[in-house]
Amino acid sequence: MLKQYSKPERPDKESFTKRLKQAREKLAAQQMMLKQRNLPVLVLVEGWGAAGKGGAIGRVIHNLDPRFFKVKTMKSPSVEEQRYPFLHRFFQEIPKAGQFVFLDSGWMDEICRQRFHGKMDDAQYDARISSVKRFERQLTDNGYLLVKLFFHISRKEQEKRIANLLADKDTAWRISDSDKWQNKHYNKCLEVFDRYLQDTDIPDAPWYIVDAKERHWAELQMLERLCTGIDTAMQNESLAVQLLQNSFPLSKVPLLSEVSLDKSIDPAEYKATLDILQKKLYGLHYRLYRKRVPVVICYEGWDAAGKGGNIKRVTEALDARGFEVHPIASPDPQEKARHYLWRFWTRLPKTGHIAIFDRTWYGRVMVERLEGFCSTNDWQRAYYEINEFEKELTDWGAVVIKFWVQIDKQTQLERFEERQNTPEKQWKITEEDWRNREKWDEYEVAINEMLQKTSTTYAPWHILESVDKKYARIKALRIIIDALEKALD
Amino acid sequence: MLKQYSKPERPDKESFTKRLKQAREKLAAQQMMLKQRNLPVLVLVEGWGAAGKGGAIGRVIHNLDPRFFKVKTMKSPSVEEQRYPFLHRFFQEIPKAGQFVFLDSGWMDEICRQRFHGKMDDAQYDARISSVKRFERQLTDNGYLLVKLFFHISRKEQEKRIANLLADKDTAWRISDSDKWQNKHYNKCLEVFDRYLQDTDIPDAPWYIVDAKERHWAELQMLERLCTGIDTAMQNESLAVQLLQNSFPLSKVPLLSEVSLDKSIDPAEYKATLDILQKKLYGLHYRLYRKRVPVVICYEGWDAAGKGGNIKRVTEALDARGFEVHPIASPDPQEKARHYLWRFWTRLPKTGHIAIFDRTWYGRVMVERLEGFCSTNDWQRAYYEINEFEKELTDWGAVVIKFWVQIDKQTQLERFEERQNTPEKQWKITEEDWRNREKWDEYEVAINEMLQKTSTTYAPWHILESVDKKYARIKALRIIIDALEKALD
Repeated sequence: MLKQYSKPERPDKESFTKRLKQAREKLAAQQMMLKQRNLPVLVLVEGWGAAGKGGAIGRVIHNLDPRFFKVKTMKSPSVEEQRYPFLHRFFQEIPKAGQFVFLDSGWMDEICRQRFHGKMDDAQYDARISSVKRFERQLTDNGYLLVKLFFHISRKEQEKRIANLLADKDTAWRISDSDKWQNKHYNKCLEVFDRYLQDTDIPDAPWYIVDAKERHWAELQMLERLCTGIDTAMQNESLAVQLLQNSFPLSKVPLLSEVSLDKSIDPAEYKATLDILQKKLYGLHYRLYRKRVPVVICYEGWDAAGKGGNIKRVTEALDARGFEVHPIASPDPQEKARHYLWRFWTRLPKTGHIAIFDRTWYGRVMVERLEGFCSTNDWQRAYYEINEFEKELTDWGAVVIKFWVQIDKQTQLERFEERQNTPEKQWKITEEDWRNREKWDEYEVAINEMLQKTSTTYAPWHILESVDKKYARIKALRIIIDALEKALD
Repeated sequence: MLKQYSKPERPDKESFTKRLKQAREKLAAQQMMLKQRNLPVLVLVEGWGAAGKGGAIGRVIHNLDPRFFKVKTMKSPSVEEQRYPFLHRFFQEIPKAGQFVFLDSGWMDEICRQRFHGKMDDAQYDARISSVKRFERQLTDNGYLLVKLFFHISRKEQEKRIANLLADKDTAWRISDSDKWQNKHYNKCLEVFDRYLQDTDIPDAPWYIVDAKERHWAELQMLERLCTGIDTAMQNESLAVQLLQNSFPLSKVPLLSEVSLDKSIDPAEYKATLDILQKKLYGLHYRLYRKRVPVVICYEGWDAAGKGGNIKRVTEALDARGFEVHPIASPDPQEKARHYLWRFWTRLPKTGHIAIFDRTWYGRVMVERLEGFCSTNDWQRAYYEINEFEKELTDWGAVVIKFWVQIDKQTQLERFEERQNTPEKQWKITEEDWRNREKWDEYEVAINEMLQKTSTTYAPWHILESVDKKYARIKALRIIIDALEKALD
């Protein structure tokens, strides 16, 4: 795309001034509409070093209310950030509904940098590109406008700018070694950039190349592109997103009605086995830590199925410094205003750590589906998106373990009543639990569909028969130990 | 304290077992009470390297529901973290109401480490101690239980443990160079620890020294200390905290009724001056960046006083990569569940950056006071706490600039009506604005008290007369430029 790039014609002075004024006013007006219609806009500003990306962002935001945008300069990932999946730090920065985020360089820059220096082979590059395309598609499918700009300048122009910036002590800090390196290896970089732009030029988030030789001209192109993008996004807003065919390798899981719940364990055997398994898990945790394997354990299940007690038997066997339990309730306003996976991306464990989710992203296809918190298209699409998300995690090297904690309706009733009648346990039972219980059958349909569509070979569902909670605990520990041992071998 | 430390007598086996069981059960029961009563508990576990801090935390949390506690290992601050005030990364971790946070080493460890290696002179140490004491007192005054434990072992014991841990490849990673250094310089470290413990043994958060030679004994001491602390905190919960005498150097500020609002600027002069001042500010921003000076700009003012437009004239003159505007609305659930300054601590700028707050922590003594969102004791104490907070910021090197944007009641009415009648502006006016307007006189009393009590020499209030918004913008820019120039000299 860069190599065949032909510069757009710069308008004459009079029409230039007119268009600039129009575009500025339009963007200011659009911002108010975005706010009312809750559309989030992520503007990715990539390009050559010293191409004037930061300056252009600075000029464009003059037209915006500063309370509703953020500009974020993405530097190289810190040592800490490197312990998370590649997209983690970018996902963290996605805008809230109705707001803009401008990224001054983003994932393109980081990938290309690794390519320049031969730190990523072809297979890794291909995997990364797929991951980026999934990420971008998921954003746009979930109502984000993603505007991708590449600021282009010639080798000569770049050389001149570097020299100018270095000459002034107040601007010299803006030139990095990497900028100088780019200029010296301009043609090599051009190849890498060009290939990346081609590889990621997806229909929902196409690239726009900005002729960045002159700053007001670059500003005009950026403004006009933004305005067009916003117009299109607002027009498309009501369109349902096309559903994708589930193409993930599935792993067999029974229907809930096929699960026999009469499994139990003898209390003495439970005690002895628990002790053995917990000691084993404790030992494995250290090995995980040393080998830097991240682990994600997901608990879903009926209310009062015994998730809390099950989790406790797992955490008892873990080193306190290496795990975190995330109880997931309804999203708070910050979370509701973003992509539904955002609150999970931001809670991922770092390598060597374990994150346990007490309820998970599967809320999308259960409570959000049944209560109408998202559209039909949204939850239907979610099976695919969730499979992608878990693929992303396992590709990163994570062990993903998913439990459905199963009981029957009668057992739930008994436990609800016991909670109701035991003063110390009353906090555990709410009106909402009773309301959900009334929808048992609808939930069962949704759960079965969820289990069938998202039990993949890389992240299969495991059913924990939990009428005898002790049985379920032992089973969970065994599954976890088994999965970790496999990962450590 | 360490040097005169005499070990508590270890109970005989039978009573040991009994006490351990009792303490474990008690803590489990207390956790449920804490949850109901929304008491947050921060447990600071400090001590010698290899004293078994992590292990003890691990044993204590066995008794807790894993959904309601977090364990956080505090490592040395990253390069990024070093660009924030010393307490920033600790403040970030404070628990939510009803939850526990265990810090495996905290601010004591970091301060003592710097002392060991002579990286902090006496004056810096004294300043740091004052800051820590303020922090701890503010936590307890705001309803936190802060339990401070120091795990003590002898030089010989430490040596033995280091050797044991190093001998096993699964535990060797737990021994750092710093642990070995400590053992080699045990007496020097003892001096520093002892002095620190004495210096920070404050009434509301005293130190407890744990004899850590044997792990179950250490567990019992930790458990019992926690239980006692929780009991006391629950008993004291309803007691009002003593108010402190405002001892900060104050700077003169007028009463609102003394402010004459007839100030204005000629539109042509405005345009020319704005241009000059914005260019000047733009230049200063680079110098701030290079010199790594952090800047905090606070806007408070009547609804419709013109804060938004004023802020925009400032941000237009700033480099997009170096500032952030934080619009402050009512706290979300995450924020409401913590110390009221938490959401501001977590939004501080790093060095070289500018944070602009559109409404601030002064909500505590305005809306929270008038709407009864906090107790009388809470908002009365807040003047002192806020002065301390801003002192903390200026001691760190920040420039703190505070604006009160002033208009009269009639002007507000005209602007409200204009907003109501202009379709693009209707989003800016809500029912709440009208309700607040009815309380104008009560607000004026609160604002005057706030201005008088919190206009300090290091963070004075500036009144912006904003009936003519243009006049207010020019005045704000002048004040900012003036403050930055002073800081850069």
